Amino acid sequence: MTNPFAFTLKATDGAARLGELATPHGVVRTPAFMPVGTAGTVKAMFTEHVRAAGADILLGNTYHLMLRPGAERVARLGGLHKFMHWDGPILTDSGGFQVMSLAKLRTLTEEGVVFQSHIDGSRHQMSPERSIEIQCLLGADIQMQLDECVALPASRAETERAMELSLRWAERSRAAFKRLSAPGQAMFGIVQGGTEHDLRERSARALAAMDCEGYSIGGLAVGEPQDVMLATIAATVPFLPEAKPRYLMGVGTPQDILLSVERGVDMFDCVMPTRAGRHGLAYTWGGKLNLKNAVHADDPNPLDASLDAPPARDYSRAYLHHLVRAEEMLAAMLLSWNNVAFYEALMAGIRRAIAQGRFQEFKAETLERFERRDGQAKPESASGKV
Amino acid sequence: MTNPFAFTLKATDGAARLGELATPHGVVRTPAFMPVGTAGTVKAMFTEHVRAAGADILLGNTYHLMLRPGAERVARLGGLHKFMHWDGPILTDSGGFQVMSLAKLRTLTEEGVVFQSHIDGSRHQMSPERSIEIQCLLGADIQMQLDECVALPASRAETERAMELSLRWAERSRAAFKRLSAPGQAMFGIVQGGTEHDLRERSARALAAMDCEGYSIGGLAVGEPQDVMLATIAATVPFLPEAKPRYLMGVGTPQDILLSVERGVDMFDCVMPTRAGRHGLAYTWGGKLNLKNAVHADDPNPLDASLDAPPARDYSRAYLHHLVRAEEMLAAMLLSWNNVAFYEALMAGIRRAIAQGRFQEFKAETLERFERRDGQAKPESASGKV
Repeated sequence: MTNPFAFTLKATDGAARLGELATPHGVVRTPAFMPVGTAGTVKAMFTEHVRAAGADILLGNTYHLMLRPGAERVARLGGLHKFMHWDGPILTDSGGFQVMSLAKLRTLTEEGVVFQSHIDGSRHQMSPERSIEIQCLLGADIQMQLDECVALPASRAETERAMELSLRWAERSRAAFKRLSAPGQAMFGIVQGGTEHDLRERSARALAAMDCEGYSIGGLAVGEPQDVMLATIAATVPFLPEAKPRYLMGVGTPQDILLSVERGVDMFDCVMPTRAGRHGLAYTWGGKLNLKNAVHADDPNPLDASLDAPPARDYSRAYLHHLVRAEEMLAAMLLSWNNVAFYEALMAGIRRAIAQGRFQEFKAETLERFERRDGQAKPESASGKV
Repeated sequence: MTNPFAFTLKATDGAARLGELATPHGVVRTPAFMPVGTAGTVKAMFTEHVRAAGADILLGNTYHLMLRPGAERVARLGGLHKFMHWDGPILTDSGGFQVMSLAKLRTLTEEGVVFQSHIDGSRHQMSPERSIEIQCLLGADIQMQLDECVALPASRAETERAMELSLRWAERSRAAFKRLSAPGQAMFGIVQGGTEHDLRERSARALAAMDCEGYSIGGLAVGEPQDVMLATIAATVPFLPEAKPRYLMGVGTPQDILLSVERGVDMFDCVMPTRAGRHGLAYTWGGKLNLKNAVHADDPNPLDASLDAPPARDYSRAYLHHLVRAEEMLAAMLLSWNNVAFYEALMAGIRRAIAQGRFQEFKAETLERFERRDGQAKPESASGKV
């Protein structure tokens, strides 16, 4: 018997929310961070370690999977869960973001987008209906409508046009989803409107009327300053239904996540922990470390003994420094795992703090720890999309 | 209390031997295959998986570790076992082979070799004494004498000169080892002499007189035909002490291993399983598969359901094909793990067969399985050194 999709709000602390998402493949504790499994793999990680690190749900990229190995092929092989050896919930994006950022020779019309693959130049067509069809072929528990995400800064007219188009595509996505989806699957509408608060409100209200299973906030973390992003979130959330989960797409740094949870966001995804891991960077409760730096060459200490994860505990910084310098794959394997474990520990800390009514203290403490260390490191961008 | 080094012969079947090596870090079941942990990591593998795959002992490369991160640094950090998170036995080579094959501007004298690092051009000196000193700093359970391995084909005069030099270096290595080693550690002498059987005999007899803890057969698997290699092994083994372990360096394919065990060899190392894994190749009981091939794109079968290892069992060939094509690190991670598990299963099969007195049947069956499949694949070289 397949579980129906359901979101249960368990506690609030200010605007911060503690909840649970029931999906056909299990429960997601929110606020949740979803590691990104771009092309059917969370890069350099075994799914067993993703799970053990505390992740309840993964994100898959529709654009990558439709091009290679192909959605129909994944369906014939039993769906994405089986294909990638992950039996927990999977959320897929619509593919629209990567069509805009990675594909070649795009032509956007009311109908959809025609584009060329960045892999082999082959021509593909993406419409709201085809995006949902692909996500259903993959078997995603949570699916996204196709939307148009304009690059910031954009003119108000351009932002409004894309937001309105995204609303029409939401209607078509919803109809396709109702026709094609399996019991218990969910579809989220995506709020657009750039940094124009009234457009965000209009988008959120229109989507709320469509009674989607949840709502995404799209078009942020694309290069705008953090305070602009946060103000836009704050201007959007009040117009989203209280009883539905809210997902901020492609965000972000630990700081971004804390400040967005504070504004009522429930779900996040970002390539940052795994990408940083492949570049020799480690997240710890003491801040971010660049293992490439010679200062670590003789350091016998583990990354973070307080983090209950083998890569944080069982290897010296000196060893990790050596692996990074020697360009050994094990460096990416250990640091990606550490970073996902750190992100999931951050979410667990957030959830605990909300349950205890001390989210503000937890946020302040954690930001303070990070700011102390980040003075020594390069500033991070809020953006971390694939 | 540290265990003394000891080799126990438990059974024989023809010239094939079943045994156990006791070392300060535990027991090694022989015939043994040692995965290669070149620069302090078995490439793309967690040590937990190396162990679970059935490996009792790893090989570390002195040349790589002396250059980066440096032997003194590893010693300060508690030794190689702790450094690389492996608490089982470690065997190290002398560094000589890589000095000859990788380093720049080598000058060989009676004293030793002066060479430039292939990494940063820095000058280093390697003598029999320094090699043992480095291996003791790393804390290797089983250490190798420095030898000179000439490239084949070589003139008899050149082969004899290198063999005689290696014998003088063995004496010096032995003296250094007696001075520097920790209780329970072992040093192996290395038989040289190219493919000249009388030189091999002279080398083996002279080394036997030095009463080393074990003996290596060096200078093979460097490009010579397999039958020449096997004939040289057969001409060497009778002059090695029955009660000491015999290690064939840098070998080899599953076929090489079976035919060498048949001739009385107890230990092997080779980069083949991990290197093949990084190149999309998988060893199975049905032969070697090239996962890059399109024939696997829709194959829902696992690599080898009979192999008790997660990478052989939990993922479809279609998925592995996808990962290889997409150049995902997980491809190398899963295939390296599978291949080490296969090699260790092969050794377990060999040990079981010797114990049951049916080594010949096991060898014939296994060779037959491999030959059937290998008609479709590229021929393998016997050589697989780093």
